[in-house]
Amino acid sequence: MSEKPRVLTGITTTGTPHLGNYVGAIRPAIAASQSAAIDSYFFMADYHALIKCQDPALVQQSAREIAATWLALGLDTDNSTFYRQSDVPEITELTWIITCVTAKGLMNRSHAYKAAVQTNEAESQDPDYGITMGLFGYPILMAADILAFNAHRVPVGRDQIQHIEMARDIGQRFNHLYGDTFVLPEADIDDDVAVLNGLDGRKMSKSYGNTIPLFLPEKKLQKMINKIKTNLLEPGEPKDPDDSTVFQIWKAFANKEQTDWMRQQFAEGIAWGQAKKELCALINTEIAAARDEYDRLLGDPGFVDQELKKGAEKARERAGRLLSEVKSAVGIPPLL
Amino acid sequence: MSEKPRVLTGITTTGTPHLGNYVGAIRPAIAASQSAAIDSYFFMADYHALIKCQDPALVQQSAREIAATWLALGLDTDNSTFYRQSDVPEITELTWIITCVTAKGLMNRSHAYKAAVQTNEAESQDPDYGITMGLFGYPILMAADILAFNAHRVPVGRDQIQHIEMARDIGQRFNHLYGDTFVLPEADIDDDVAVLNGLDGRKMSKSYGNTIPLFLPEKKLQKMINKIKTNLLEPGEPKDPDDSTVFQIWKAFANKEQTDWMRQQFAEGIAWGQAKKELCALINTEIAAARDEYDRLLGDPGFVDQELKKGAEKARERAGRLLSEVKSAVGIPPLL
Repeated sequence: MSEKPRVLTGITTTGTPHLGNYVGAIRPAIAASQSAAIDSYFFMADYHALIKCQDPALVQQSAREIAATWLALGLDTDNSTFYRQSDVPEITELTWIITCVTAKGLMNRSHAYKAAVQTNEAESQDPDYGITMGLFGYPILMAADILAFNAHRVPVGRDQIQHIEMARDIGQRFNHLYGDTFVLPEADIDDDVAVLNGLDGRKMSKSYGNTIPLFLPEKKLQKMINKIKTNLLEPGEPKDPDDSTVFQIWKAFANKEQTDWMRQQFAEGIAWGQAKKELCALINTEIAAARDEYDRLLGDPGFVDQELKKGAEKARERAGRLLSEVKSAVGIPPLL
Repeated sequence: MSEKPRVLTGITTTGTPHLGNYVGAIRPAIAASQSAAIDSYFFMADYHALIKCQDPALVQQSAREIAATWLALGLDTDNSTFYRQSDVPEITELTWIITCVTAKGLMNRSHAYKAAVQTNEAESQDPDYGITMGLFGYPILMAADILAFNAHRVPVGRDQIQHIEMARDIGQRFNHLYGDTFVLPEADIDDDVAVLNGLDGRKMSKSYGNTIPLFLPEKKLQKMINKIKTNLLEPGEPKDPDDSTVFQIWKAFANKEQTDWMRQQFAEGIAWGQAKKELCALINTEIAAARDEYDRLLGDPGFVDQELKKGAEKARERAGRLLSEVKSAVGIPPLL
């Protein structure tokens, strides 16, 4: 039997999931979690969250919401491995070991670090002003996240390609020094991935403050959808679906028939208010049951934690085996 | 009952212990391990060894020899905690967490890093040429070594003071951001510590290649001692003990009477050959039993590993409690 491909997805644990996250990342990942052909790993990147957020209440709240979101949407935790990064100490152990084979020059070239230095220089600050070793060195933690499971593929956006390349560089360096140990991971770039626009028509993103949270109660969801920017065309005037955020979001939730139907409605001059009502109803059909489950899970943290424990055990078992190999390779074999 | 002071000593696991290590560090540390007034931690810094040494056989051999040395010399592993750093994953977990509160600017000022940059610049290389993230960031690992046990005191040489100051800085920063969590450690500088000279009369040090290994068989020890540089004074000519490496090493092993006696011999013109015979005999009296035990332990790695396991369990129990607090403080509490 040939090995199933291992596909590893990191989940940022800052902020509340929005429709853009759902359509672009969560929904396809959950479909993958149910596939018998893939060995899927999903981890909540809570150690990465510490780089950006030093508010413990926020870090904790966000992790809770995100775990509940993925579980409510039907993540298959038996067929995949779902865990908090921080529950797998093997990852930080590996981080240190590969830190010793990572050139400082490689980190000097990290986009995130260079951007921070540029900002400082533009403000005539010391280049490293306000930069932590967390920001500087996190590509090594990301490499360990991936290498610890010898993941074959890592689905990422184009802005993350550098991190996967760094993980390859580091894994390759280790293999060169100590013998073949790590699979060199490939970035899995899906350019067809649906990118939703937000309230203002730009890409939906927390940093633009234009997001529609995924699990709003229906009335609030409608209110939010009503805020989507439209043009001033009156009811009865034909509208261009391909220039409309309302239609763009509609498409992401509709089947072919529903898409054709809405295109027709636009041609026939549907009122913006009506189109937004239809949109809310459509989204609601897809997510209402999951939203109920989400609310239930937020009230049952014990259940969520049991799922995460199950995942952590599976993850530790696998990463632990590889870490033993890694330690033996560098001259620190397990005690007898 | 007031808390015993916790004193933490890191043991470098590169190279073979020599008489200078024994007199300056190992012998006093082993005496401390037997004191009921101190809670002593001794750890083999094998994760630090990876920065300097990428030869797995050497890393492993050195760690074996060093563990056997400390045990053979009577380290009290019931009254103290003796472990390999790499067997306590809590240390690397803490390393990552404090990495997120450590300014990159702090690491830029590390002596070891600056020295490496200077060497590169002197050779017109890229400043970071050949520098790994291990070399750049190891003061954070050292801080975690110390903070993980809330150690009060760390016995170090003057060249290590900066590391303790960095551990204090990092602990203080964490306490400031997240509330009082870490004891701020103090460097324990003993300027009276015996510094032995080596074969050539300079300080005995691996980097000068002038060391006398601690556990040489007696005949080889005598041969080595015979190589100690002396002046050309003939037998019968009075010799100055305070200008003699032979006498300096003698003093480090002798009691008051023996010291006075040898001083007298020097005044009476003892031959160098005879003085070196006496010296070898004196050292041998102190270490012969330990050397036999050392040889036995090298042949019984299972026993050594059992001791290290016992230490790792104690260390993990203590570091684990603190790590749980730390994780809760940053917003990543243990699963329910």
